[in-house]
Amino acid sequence: MANKLNIEIYDPKVETRNLSEQKLIDEKLFNKQIAYLFENSNFYRNKLRKSGFKSAKSVGGLNNLEELPFTTKDELRKSQSEAIVSASHWAAPIENIARIYSTSGTSGTPMYIPLTRNDLACWILTSKRAYTAAGIKPHHRVLTTYNSGPFVAGAVGESLQSLGVNLIPIGTGNTERLIRSLQRFKPNAMPGTPSFLLYIAEIASSLGIDPAKCGLETLVCGGEPGASETAVRHKLQTAFNSKVYEVMGVGDISISMWGESTEQEGMHFCAQDFVYVELINPSNGKSIKMEDGATGELVYTHLQHEAAPLLRFRSRDHVIIKTGIVKSGRTGNRVKCLGRTDDMIIVRGVNVFPSAIREVVSEFQPLVSGIILVKLQQAGVKQSPPILVEVELAEKQTAVNKEELASNIEKAIRDKLVFSSRVRLVPHGSVHRSEYKTNLVSYSNTDLN
Amino acid sequence: MANKLNIEIYDPKVETRNLSEQKLIDEKLFNKQIAYLFENSNFYRNKLRKSGFKSAKSVGGLNNLEELPFTTKDELRKSQSEAIVSASHWAAPIENIARIYSTSGTSGTPMYIPLTRNDLACWILTSKRAYTAAGIKPHHRVLTTYNSGPFVAGAVGESLQSLGVNLIPIGTGNTERLIRSLQRFKPNAMPGTPSFLLYIAEIASSLGIDPAKCGLETLVCGGEPGASETAVRHKLQTAFNSKVYEVMGVGDISISMWGESTEQEGMHFCAQDFVYVELINPSNGKSIKMEDGATGELVYTHLQHEAAPLLRFRSRDHVIIKTGIVKSGRTGNRVKCLGRTDDMIIVRGVNVFPSAIREVVSEFQPLVSGIILVKLQQAGVKQSPPILVEVELAEKQTAVNKEELASNIEKAIRDKLVFSSRVRLVPHGSVHRSEYKTNLVSYSNTDLN
Repeated sequence: MANKLNIEIYDPKVETRNLSEQKLIDEKLFNKQIAYLFENSNFYRNKLRKSGFKSAKSVGGLNNLEELPFTTKDELRKSQSEAIVSASHWAAPIENIARIYSTSGTSGTPMYIPLTRNDLACWILTSKRAYTAAGIKPHHRVLTTYNSGPFVAGAVGESLQSLGVNLIPIGTGNTERLIRSLQRFKPNAMPGTPSFLLYIAEIASSLGIDPAKCGLETLVCGGEPGASETAVRHKLQTAFNSKVYEVMGVGDISISMWGESTEQEGMHFCAQDFVYVELINPSNGKSIKMEDGATGELVYTHLQHEAAPLLRFRSRDHVIIKTGIVKSGRTGNRVKCLGRTDDMIIVRGVNVFPSAIREVVSEFQPLVSGIILVKLQQAGVKQSPPILVEVELAEKQTAVNKEELASNIEKAIRDKLVFSSRVRLVPHGSVHRSEYKTNLVSYSNTDLN
Repeated sequence: MANKLNIEIYDPKVETRNLSEQKLIDEKLFNKQIAYLFENSNFYRNKLRKSGFKSAKSVGGLNNLEELPFTTKDELRKSQSEAIVSASHWAAPIENIARIYSTSGTSGTPMYIPLTRNDLACWILTSKRAYTAAGIKPHHRVLTTYNSGPFVAGAVGESLQSLGVNLIPIGTGNTERLIRSLQRFKPNAMPGTPSFLLYIAEIASSLGIDPAKCGLETLVCGGEPGASETAVRHKLQTAFNSKVYEVMGVGDISISMWGESTEQEGMHFCAQDFVYVELINPSNGKSIKMEDGATGELVYTHLQHEAAPLLRFRSRDHVIIKTGIVKSGRTGNRVKCLGRTDDMIIVRGVNVFPSAIREVVSEFQPLVSGIILVKLQQAGVKQSPPILVEVELAEKQTAVNKEELASNIEKAIRDKLVFSSRVRLVPHGSVHRSEYKTNLVSYSNTDLN
């Protein structure tokens, strides 16, 4: 079985470990991590004491984790803004820091993410597990589309180097150069955000180069949700004549913690021993059991982090859990990402993810391009119907009956997502493409953002 | 002595090796490299045979090196354009390639530079020698301004990681983010092109941040000549209140082969065992002895390269040699780069380097900013006087007597560089600043380029 699927596991002992055995290991690591935080983190010493935990011992084990307070991005932002060099949630002296990454900081100051040498080694290891799951082998040629400037994606490059691949670094900013390298070197694999990969396919075609003939076997999608949506995946797989696998990480916790395997049955948890993961209801914060079909927000707890370990960090990633036996023997829970809780809007009590709208719209391909933009008319998460959705027409689809198409899409959205929308068809190419993450939502019609 | 200067040598055994002993080692490596090329490189097998060398043995040793033909960038370009995947000057199978870098390709298609795992290790090692010479220590915080996309500068980042520094990767494209990180983390060292570092200082001041108060001890300049010009160095050292050291490499040969040490007496050759270096007269190709004060073009020969070894590669870097005892005990020849032979123009038989013009103009600081642009009126290397030089005024120097200043600069250029110029003073900020290399020459007034 395993041989037929050509399954290789980077860390078989860990990745196929029995989950109850894993819990015992995690438990010990968790106790140590809490003791480390009481000793080294002003931020957590204060935070835990305020919540009534006077000492590491009083925190107890993983079964009491629900009693601990969450950590949010806003708290980290506050901790950073009050500090001069290292923020109060940094638990290692600056002398021990090997790398300082930062976030894009689109909504203000960038957040700095410190790593010790050990932390970096853990990131690289979990990422190697995830990329191996996604089918990348040491002898592969891999063309990277991630920039390795200030962002954590730089560590993905290190992880691929450490896997021993032939790396062709490119990054964003020069799509034509990228396509020429693709054509010349016929790499086996290419990681990237799904929106950038789709953009590459578009540009390649416009240059008269068929991306399906560039020999790519594997696309590894990360950085934003999308690659697990049926239509997006189909479009990518067809354009490049290659398989699509998804990876997912969180800059504050670790890169590529989750990796979809060649079985394409969801992303496996690959950060065993380093990160403990929970599922919660994002509305009330209550824990949800990780069972097949459960949905909720992922919450992460570091188990042996040194530089800035986080406890119960709210990821804002909304996922559906998949369990059950897989052929490879990997035991880590699997997830499919439904969208970012940040992007979620509530329409008359119904939770709506823009990525779900895209999934419905994409069923109207080839009439539409699959690219949408949800244009919100009010600030905030609660929105009144109808929701304005700009839907891009496919190339050369000017002859289509626009009124009928728009009305059919509106109907499909109402049927499947239970809210009413107003669909505005726009010409092909008019919705902004991004070389990194494509925004699905814009507040540009309001004065409020 | 050594202790007083705080000199540390990365590879003391190699870097203080007696030059005649080095020659014996190089000799053996050279013989092996030639045998390897006859066996694995179509390009050199043909090239050497055409020059009358039927076998590796007939090539002889390093003392016969002058008999071998040069390799030029144009030949490599041709070799690449004729190939499908790997060019004929590639000597290792694509399966053994660990990394494929490319050049910026401003003048056409990018050139691809392959490296095996061993080649990459050599690059990283020589760069570690050079950066250690420039005063970077494992415990330093280092903010990198190089982008690590498709270009060889990415390997500089790996070399610094491997030295064990705390790396704060930033890159170009977001100068304000860079300055905020500079202010927050007070790194010990920052590598960059001299033009970008000057630009950073300007932007920092405009944001109300004094770069001299950011704690930088060391600026490591590379990527373009300039940092050894007295005025440029003085300006950088004053702006950042830190010492300036220069490094120099050639993408096709190795990164950071040369590194200036804390003694600031020119760049030491740091690629012992991997690269053999010669000096030639760029006009007639004749060898020049490497003795104190000699000037000419550097020519490089790989000694143990695997992926695409080059023989007598013409670098187009025009240097002056410095010899003599240095306190650190480093024995490698030293150089100061005078400019790029590519940039050189000939005015009535006189060789003129635009960087030399900049050096003369800079003596008029603080009336001028030190930024110039040589605007050529004809295509080609031969130019008729007067040569038009745009000279940027310093900030708030509007009250200066412009006619007198321009005429004084013209006189200084005539006195020191022996050609006549026409100086056009332009307002501060009007000459384009670059985040990478700043062009000193423009053909924009002609229809010819």
